[in-house]
Amino acid sequence: MKSTRTVQKILGYYETDNPGVKGNLCRMLMHGRLGGTGKMIILPVDQGFEHGPARSFAPNPPAYDPHYHYQIAIDAGLNAYAAPLGMLEAGADTFAGQIPTILKVNSSNSLVPGAAPFSQAITSGVDDALRLGCAAIGFTIYPGSSVALDMFEEISAMREEAAAKGVATVIWSYPRGEDLSKAGETAIDVGAYAAQIAALLGAHIIKIKLSTDHLEQGEAKKAYEKAGIDVSTQAARVRHCMDAAFAGRRIVVFSGGAAKGADAVYDDARAIRDGGGNGSIIGRNTFQRSRDDAMAMLDKLVDIYKGRA
Amino acid sequence: MKSTRTVQKILGYYETDNPGVKGNLCRMLMHGRLGGTGKMIILPVDQGFEHGPARSFAPNPPAYDPHYHYQIAIDAGLNAYAAPLGMLEAGADTFAGQIPTILKVNSSNSLVPGAAPFSQAITSGVDDALRLGCAAIGFTIYPGSSVALDMFEEISAMREEAAAKGVATVIWSYPRGEDLSKAGETAIDVGAYAAQIAALLGAHIIKIKLSTDHLEQGEAKKAYEKAGIDVSTQAARVRHCMDAAFAGRRIVVFSGGAAKGADAVYDDARAIRDGGGNGSIIGRNTFQRSRDDAMAMLDKLVDIYKGRA
Amino acid sequence: MKSTRTVQKILGYYETDNPGVKGNLCRMLMHGRLGGTGKMIILPVDQGFEHGPARSFAPNPPAYDPHYHYQIAIDAGLNAYAAPLGMLEAGADTFAGQIPTILKVNSSNSLVPGAAPFSQAITSGVDDALRLGCAAIGFTIYPGSSVALDMFEEISAMREEAAAKGVATVIWSYPRGEDLSKAGETAIDVGAYAAQIAALLGAHIIKIKLSTDHLEQGEAKKAYEKAGIDVSTQAARVRHCMDAAFAGRRIVVFSGGAAKGADAVYDDARAIRDGGGNGSIIGRNTFQRSRDDAMAMLDKLVDIYKGRA
Amino acid sequence: MKSTRTVQKILGYYETDNPGVKGNLCRMLMHGRLGGTGKMIILPVDQGFEHGPARSFAPNPPAYDPHYHYQIAIDAGLNAYAAPLGMLEAGADTFAGQIPTILKVNSSNSLVPGAAPFSQAITSGVDDALRLGCAAIGFTIYPGSSVALDMFEEISAMREEAAAKGVATVIWSYPRGEDLSKAGETAIDVGAYAAQIAALLGAHIIKIKLSTDHLEQGEAKKAYEKAGIDVSTQAARVRHCMDAAFAGRRIVVFSGGAAKGADAVYDDARAIRDGGGNGSIIGRNTFQRSRDDAMAMLDKLVDIYKGRA
Amino acid sequence: MKSTRTVQKILGYYETDNPGVKGNLCRMLMHGRLGGTGKMIILPVDQGFEHGPARSFAPNPPAYDPHYHYQIAIDAGLNAYAAPLGMLEAGADTFAGQIPTILKVNSSNSLVPGAAPFSQAITSGVDDALRLGCAAIGFTIYPGSSVALDMFEEISAMREEAAAKGVATVIWSYPRGEDLSKAGETAIDVGAYAAQIAALLGAHIIKIKLSTDHLEQGEAKKAYEKAGIDVSTQAARVRHCMDAAFAGRRIVVFSGGAAKGADAVYDDARAIRDGGGNGSIIGRNTFQRSRDDAMAMLDKLVDIYKGRA
Repeated sequence: MKSTRTVQKILGYYETDNPGVKGNLCRMLMHGRLGGTGKMIILPVDQGFEHGPARSFAPNPPAYDPHYHYQIAIDAGLNAYAAPLGMLEAGADTFAGQIPTILKVNSSNSLVPGAAPFSQAITSGVDDALRLGCAAIGFTIYPGSSVALDMFEEISAMREEAAAKGVATVIWSYPRGEDLSKAGETAIDVGAYAAQIAALLGAHIIKIKLSTDHLEQGEAKKAYEKAGIDVSTQAARVRHCMDAAFAGRRIVVFSGGAAKGADAVYDDARAIRDGGGNGSIIGRNTFQRSRDDAMAMLDKLVDIYKGRA
Repeated sequence: MKSTRTVQKILGYYETDNPGVKGNLCRMLMHGRLGGTGKMIILPVDQGFEHGPARSFAPNPPAYDPHYHYQIAIDAGLNAYAAPLGMLEAGADTFAGQIPTILKVNSSNSLVPGAAPFSQAITSGVDDALRLGCAAIGFTIYPGSSVALDMFEEISAMREEAAAKGVATVIWSYPRGEDLSKAGETAIDVGAYAAQIAALLGAHIIKIKLSTDHLEQGEAKKAYEKAGIDVSTQAARVRHCMDAAFAGRRIVVFSGGAAKGADAVYDDARAIRDGGGNGSIIGRNTFQRSRDDAMAMLDKLVDIYKGRA
Repeated sequence: MKSTRTVQKILGYYETDNPGVKGNLCRMLMHGRLGGTGKMIILPVDQGFEHGPARSFAPNPPAYDPHYHYQIAIDAGLNAYAAPLGMLEAGADTFAGQIPTILKVNSSNSLVPGAAPFSQAITSGVDDALRLGCAAIGFTIYPGSSVALDMFEEISAMREEAAAKGVATVIWSYPRGEDLSKAGETAIDVGAYAAQIAALLGAHIIKIKLSTDHLEQGEAKKAYEKAGIDVSTQAARVRHCMDAAFAGRRIVVFSGGAAKGADAVYDDARAIRDGGGNGSIIGRNTFQRSRDDAMAMLDKLVDIYKGRA
Repeated sequence: MKSTRTVQKILGYYETDNPGVKGNLCRMLMHGRLGGTGKMIILPVDQGFEHGPARSFAPNPPAYDPHYHYQIAIDAGLNAYAAPLGMLEAGADTFAGQIPTILKVNSSNSLVPGAAPFSQAITSGVDDALRLGCAAIGFTIYPGSSVALDMFEEISAMREEAAAKGVATVIWSYPRGEDLSKAGETAIDVGAYAAQIAALLGAHIIKIKLSTDHLEQGEAKKAYEKAGIDVSTQAARVRHCMDAAFAGRRIVVFSGGAAKGADAVYDDARAIRDGGGNGSIIGRNTFQRSRDDAMAMLDKLVDIYKGRA
Repeated sequence: MKSTRTVQKILGYYETDNPGVKGNLCRMLMHGRLGGTGKMIILPVDQGFEHGPARSFAPNPPAYDPHYHYQIAIDAGLNAYAAPLGMLEAGADTFAGQIPTILKVNSSNSLVPGAAPFSQAITSGVDDALRLGCAAIGFTIYPGSSVALDMFEEISAMREEAAAKGVATVIWSYPRGEDLSKAGETAIDVGAYAAQIAALLGAHIIKIKLSTDHLEQGEAKKAYEKAGIDVSTQAARVRHCMDAAFAGRRIVVFSGGAAKGADAVYDDARAIRDGGGNGSIIGRNTFQRSRDDAMAMLDKLVDIYKGRA
């Protein structure tokens, strides 16, 4: 496919990456109904690992089937589908070549004891990604955790291997840690910091949460106030996070969190769009609705990112 | 892209291949103007290595520039572009993600002394293919050469590595050897045998030459006569070669050889189509014409493969 | 399946082999209509490589399709199916678990120039066998060739790797060489010698040709005459070859060569049975007949090995 | 470039290093407006990692863009630019060959919980440095931390690999630890000790902070008093640190810490110059000012190091 | 150093190379008196290996000393100095950082028996180049030799390793072989072919000889005549070779061969300049003259490449 000028510009930001990585970024950016716009919607399905199957799939039982998610990502014209090893193993042959996939290589789960440090297990690798034909690997870091430095070292090594083999890296940068308040996990200072760390670790695509206007760190609060950074609206906060991602030189997609009303989902997307973000990574709000509702929602999200809604 | 039923059927033939290889086959089969039809036109540009630059590019000087070939393959909507390392290095970044590429990993040249056995040098590898974002590697074998067994061992090892990493393998199966007559190189018995050997070596895509009705080997001649195999027309010979490629379970593309009149090129394509072949791999007949002529010819070839001309 | 006393006895001969290898031998010995009898019929299909597709498959065109051979081996209740990489790749998924398979890891072809030494190319490996779920690898040696020592070293290394990984080894021991007369290739002294070499190289199953009563080597002739070895009947020659295979401690199957009349095939099988051989490996006499004829022949062969015909 | 006598003398101190390392030291010493003087100004931009993006870049928003820093280092004629992986990846191609770079291979961050030991994560390696064309790697150690010995082992291994491959090593030696008072982190006895440890670990360039006249360790205090070491002025303390760096046989650059008034920055530089230090490594005082102010300041610093201001 | 627009354009041609390789190309292109012009003069001293010391150095005895060549390359402001391992070992420390160097990793010699195929010995490697601080490795191929395919495989492997580690590759492409006439070694068709092969093998800098208007290969002759390629003047032949080097996308330097009159050297340089070549690689014509004469000649060559003479 001839890539658009918009996509070419984005690819140009990845100036030291080899054509293998760029080709995979291009595949994701050119795929689906948002193909060529520089915007993306990614379907992530790792909640079965993170929260357990019932909490994840019982609201919409067809979603227990791994094929369901491949099919919805294809039918809705999304840019990519992300999942842990087992989910991809269960559908990668049937849907080979039909949708770019992201192998989520580490995962946590809600059976971990409360006293354990915030961490994740590495459950697959770059060779799995090649074998399964994935465009990228996905890796979660928990900036703020007492084991965050270990996680950074893990993803640095995997990212080096992946990039050499032409596979892109998506970092889920989710602040979580022993000293971080619940509000702090989505504080704007912490969210922007999370984006910055992912960029510095060499992420090609950065996934962060939408932030609140809370400021968690004392020194940061002073800096925000002194510099008069506008964090009053969601769009302003998205824009601030894009700045933290090398002044927009890295693709950033935003996750929406738990299932919520459709209008709230649309408002989030409009804020991402207006703030210059690259798009949404939207799991539970998709697969916990019926297929019809999910398709309608994704249809509307595409319209929003195209500036039509 | 949603793959078509036709492409799904072809992918189904590669039943033991991993989703990485299938995805790359799918990319090639779904790309360009023949995308989804199960037919392919591939542009190969290794003649600068094989015959030298003047014999290859002087008839159409813009073709000295590696970007020229990328551009024509993209603009004409071909399925893939194949070339040796240096040619791809000189354009892979500019055209990343815009056209599936095949890294030709071995090459011969016409400066080799006459007394040397028929062979080729391996000039790049699977890791180069990953780094350059290639969908496949391409490898020439010379069945009939005194070093053919060595070449088979080389490609077997590279094919194993490539397939494990999700990269497809295209084998150029070109009979050539100390005991083979010039007519024998394109004899139908030898051509079908060449297709069979490539299939047995695990090729995902087989590239052979169009054959004549000459029968080279005595034992084969008897078998053809006894079985009453029809090799009287080009289409019949193509059909026979498809049989030799696991009864059509492997993709076979046919090369046209030296530049010739446009009508001859079209007749070849019609014979390939009518005999059930998968398409053309067409180099000199493309780039030794002016760009306008080449584009018109490729346009017509697309029409032929679509059954419209 | 519970293995029979007969099979247990045979497995007992492989006393230093690990349970992985023994399990695979057991799978082959217990599979199909001869399962448990200690007798075997194996279908080998590597003639497309050795003689070319037309000479191999044109007499019975459905045989161009790799699935055809899997299906006949399953439907006829044979013990195993042997073929080169490409043939297995094209059916191993469809027929996974339905018939023990032997990956033929080296192959020759009849396009090789006459001046080249008698050799074969290694075209797959032990890891391919594991990946494809094969019970054994198969390897041809040419005792008598100027490169025979190299071939012995190759199979020794592959056999070591295979056995360590629980994969059995079948050696096709086919005398052929610069100093060997045509008659010598099937001479009884040479045939017995070939069986001995395969046994000494560690073959778990030995495949040799049926012999004539010709004696090729002068020193051997003297020894045969002095010891009064009976080589006057085919059964006697089979018995002599079993002696050469560690006094029957190794499984030996006999190949029938080119297609011939059904009665000749049955006579061969009776001789193998009466001489204490383990069975037949029968390719062209199977797939160059129509499926109905082949099924009838295989049915009768089963009866012969069961002592009923 | 012909290196000056001053630079030759400095290179002579690295008497066991190979020409690769010396060449890279030479490149840094000969580059820019201080090239040839034996003095250096290095721009380090790792504060986005250490303190977060808003605290680092909000005071001068163009600094969010990685290109900004490359450009200022080049335009101001500095000797080198140091940054973590992501920052270099985002500009190394555009600015290839235009400014020596130092890959900061480990980093900490201020989201780490308070109870965690003082440490950093290794986020890139020597092969990254080669690939990105860096003259050196940079590594922070925290003498005083409970994990300092681990950090020493990490940098020792990386330094060995780097030096073998011709890449120089810069050690950021920053005292920090469970038993160290805040004042102790910049105490002169501790600072000189930090310089000594870096030299002993094989650093080619040592980066330490400017010290106060505080003496932290009891035994050290006695030694200083007994020997009558002058630590009353900044220049005297710089001279004392140079003594601790093998009597000046190792290059030492001094960091200025948080942004402060221009005059204070100039005074620091004069003290470094007068005390025989090799120069400044100056980050926030550069990029937290407007580009014009930063350029003016760097201009003046060059003059100071040249003895003109 | 800020690279010029001309150099930036040339670096842009190396679009898939990492910043390490580009940085080293930039170092060579920006170094010396031709720095920034896109033109280069390189001093190669491998004739002691190729022809023996007396034939090489006796005409100017100070040239026996390795330091002599480093010094002249530096004093004359050349772009780079190329030599085998021993020559660089004997001076790399003294001159570290003062002149980009090229490690000539293979070499032939005139003691080789006449019946031996045209080849060279690999006498150093990429790690040596890193250790010695070299900007590039240099490798000779003999297109036309019966062992040319082996040489291509050797340089392909070394080039891959070098490029991954940020070291550029210079290929000396010198046609020589069993079937090549003496005149054919410098024939224009063969010379252009040699440039093409080096480019296809991934050379960053191509070194070929100046050609004559002789046409060696029959098929090529026809192509030249049909296309009406002008090879009547040296400048036209240089231009034709630049076309063969990916339409000028690769740097090509031309060697002058044996020592000859100064005017002939100047005429060569003017032809290289006028034909769009990148410069001269000039050994014997430098070091077989007295230092004063050599310096005067190099001075004039710089003027010629700057368009002033």
